[in-house]
Amino acid sequence: MASERKIDVELGGRNLDRSYVITIERGILDKIGGRLVELGLGSGRCAVITNPTVGGLYLERLTASLEAAGITPVVVDIPDGESYKNLEEISRVYDRLLSERLERDSPVIALGGGVIGDMAGYVAATYLRGVPFIQVPTTLLAQVDSSVGGKTGVNHALGKNLIGAFYQPRAVYIDPDLLSTLEGREQRAGLGEVIKHGVIWDDSFLSFIEDNVEELLALNPDAVASAIDCSCTIKAGIVGEDEREAGLRAILNFGHTFGHAIEALTHYKEYRHGEALAIGMVMAADLSAALGLADAALARRIEKLLAAFDLPTRLPEGISVDELIATLHLDKKVKNGSIRFILIEQAGKVVLRAVSEQEIRDSLGAAPPSVK
Amino acid sequence: MASERKIDVELGGRNLDRSYVITIERGILDKIGGRLVELGLGSGRCAVITNPTVGGLYLERLTASLEAAGITPVVVDIPDGESYKNLEEISRVYDRLLSERLERDSPVIALGGGVIGDMAGYVAATYLRGVPFIQVPTTLLAQVDSSVGGKTGVNHALGKNLIGAFYQPRAVYIDPDLLSTLEGREQRAGLGEVIKHGVIWDDSFLSFIEDNVEELLALNPDAVASAIDCSCTIKAGIVGEDEREAGLRAILNFGHTFGHAIEALTHYKEYRHGEALAIGMVMAADLSAALGLADAALARRIEKLLAAFDLPTRLPEGISVDELIATLHLDKKVKNGSIRFILIEQAGKVVLRAVSEQEIRDSLGAAPPSVK
Repeated sequence: MASERKIDVELGGRNLDRSYVITIERGILDKIGGRLVELGLGSGRCAVITNPTVGGLYLERLTASLEAAGITPVVVDIPDGESYKNLEEISRVYDRLLSERLERDSPVIALGGGVIGDMAGYVAATYLRGVPFIQVPTTLLAQVDSSVGGKTGVNHALGKNLIGAFYQPRAVYIDPDLLSTLEGREQRAGLGEVIKHGVIWDDSFLSFIEDNVEELLALNPDAVASAIDCSCTIKAGIVGEDEREAGLRAILNFGHTFGHAIEALTHYKEYRHGEALAIGMVMAADLSAALGLADAALARRIEKLLAAFDLPTRLPEGISVDELIATLHLDKKVKNGSIRFILIEQAGKVVLRAVSEQEIRDSLGAAPPSVK
Repeated sequence: MASERKIDVELGGRNLDRSYVITIERGILDKIGGRLVELGLGSGRCAVITNPTVGGLYLERLTASLEAAGITPVVVDIPDGESYKNLEEISRVYDRLLSERLERDSPVIALGGGVIGDMAGYVAATYLRGVPFIQVPTTLLAQVDSSVGGKTGVNHALGKNLIGAFYQPRAVYIDPDLLSTLEGREQRAGLGEVIKHGVIWDDSFLSFIEDNVEELLALNPDAVASAIDCSCTIKAGIVGEDEREAGLRAILNFGHTFGHAIEALTHYKEYRHGEALAIGMVMAADLSAALGLADAALARRIEKLLAAFDLPTRLPEGISVDELIATLHLDKKVKNGSIRFILIEQAGKVVLRAVSEQEIRDSLGAAPPSVK
């Protein structure tokens, strides 16, 4: 009944020791214990890192599956929300795992969205100098984005994801049925990253999304599984070429430079990540047009699709251009003072370009009226 | 005048992207800026992590070399001592690097002994998800041990090095002349690791040390450079086979299981790491003899050589067997309750074996009188 899709994430020709498989399968949540045994991770214990919201929905099924396979879970709850994505909470997790005496071969399983995945991955990367890491992403955003690529970490008072490590999971298990319990806003926010993958890499995938807005909003299982599969395959292909973000991988940051600044300026409270990304993508497309790289119609096409999913597309009025630029300067993508942006030339084709402060100011002043 | 020795640390046939070179050269401290430029790390800025003691001796020469090469250093002092090797200090370093806006291509340079190397390496592994890491080890222990292998991290209230990451340096620069400012006790402590490399891997190197006790104690430049070279070559060979400590690399832990427990029980204050290791090696050799793996004469040979360098070889009277065993159980090398020890069969040949609590008790009760 449940069709299974598998994506091999092959990390560089020489680095196959860090490669892993993403499995997309309806109902896989109830089979994870057995899958871990197949991976050779079935002896003894494991840690499950989750939050009360996700745990309340899915923890019982996961632990039942683990225990049926002879694996005893130590469950660690992290309070729900990006504001807890910090080193203090990480330290609390270390204390717990150490007091439970979890050993080097005990996997750490992330059951949750992007925040849980990033934090659990960072714990797995740094507890006893690294233990096996398993991702069970429960939001669309985490399924299509943070489950591919090995980025882990936490925020710092001075910015997002400033402390972290590249650390690859041993396996990712994606159960599309888990999305049905997400509130509508959370589902739609995840589509921001899905759309981004089409925008930067594959015009035909972008057209598929444009043709399936209703199906995706209704969580039609085939449409959702296809969107996850295409998104993960695109990202896996890019990450496979460039695991440590030396070059190509930077294109995944399309929309993120503005998006992160907007999240920081609204204290990670006003927008979901996918929402801030949606605004950031439109701003990056408008900047591309202002610099003469792309036709302005492309920015409007992207904006129209995002708006169809009820995603925001414009900088909120409370944020001034000066604040935005000051925050951009704190970003990891600043190099020698000028800001490196991923800009777009046409659907499926982006470029890296250094942009001056004045060019950003000019673009922001010239943004066209919204299509919404 | 200055002879230069180079050791290639080749990390696994498939992982040459993490390989690097160790350069052993008298006076290299004054040339590091130029070497960084040759490595492509010469643009802009860097962080230098050191402590007041080492910084007072060598920081001026290092910064002069960096500045002459056009690199501006941001100097971060960590208070001197193992008791500061913790996450709180790491967090303070992050704050500093972020407030100085150090970017992704700015290297982190460790100028100091093992504590500085471990902490700076952990910062380099986790700041902005990883920046280039350069080691300038200033103690014999750091030169022969922590500069090879990529182990980075900090201690936790529950044990040593429990939080950390595997992260390889881009280069290691060893200046044997720096050792002349070490106090005698620190110099001798470093010889504990040097002797360990002979014990576990190379009987002829062990004999070289036995034949050069006076020369090594007097810091004869040729003898010291040879000892560093042999030690690093042995360790690089072992680590190259097994970067992530899945198998072979565990033999480097010979003497460390007992040694770490002794350090923890004396709150990292009574012994230098190399001193606790010396006691641990004799205990491990005695345990090997008690289990019938080795001749008791081998333990006495090791003890005699360590004692010739005035290193301690016996468990201090204040530590009870019960305390020792309770502390061993907190060690990372505990697997499914039994304790995995590296034991010795003959000089240059060690084995991994699970040892029960009772076997440890029996061995400790049966230790022969000291040869000192």
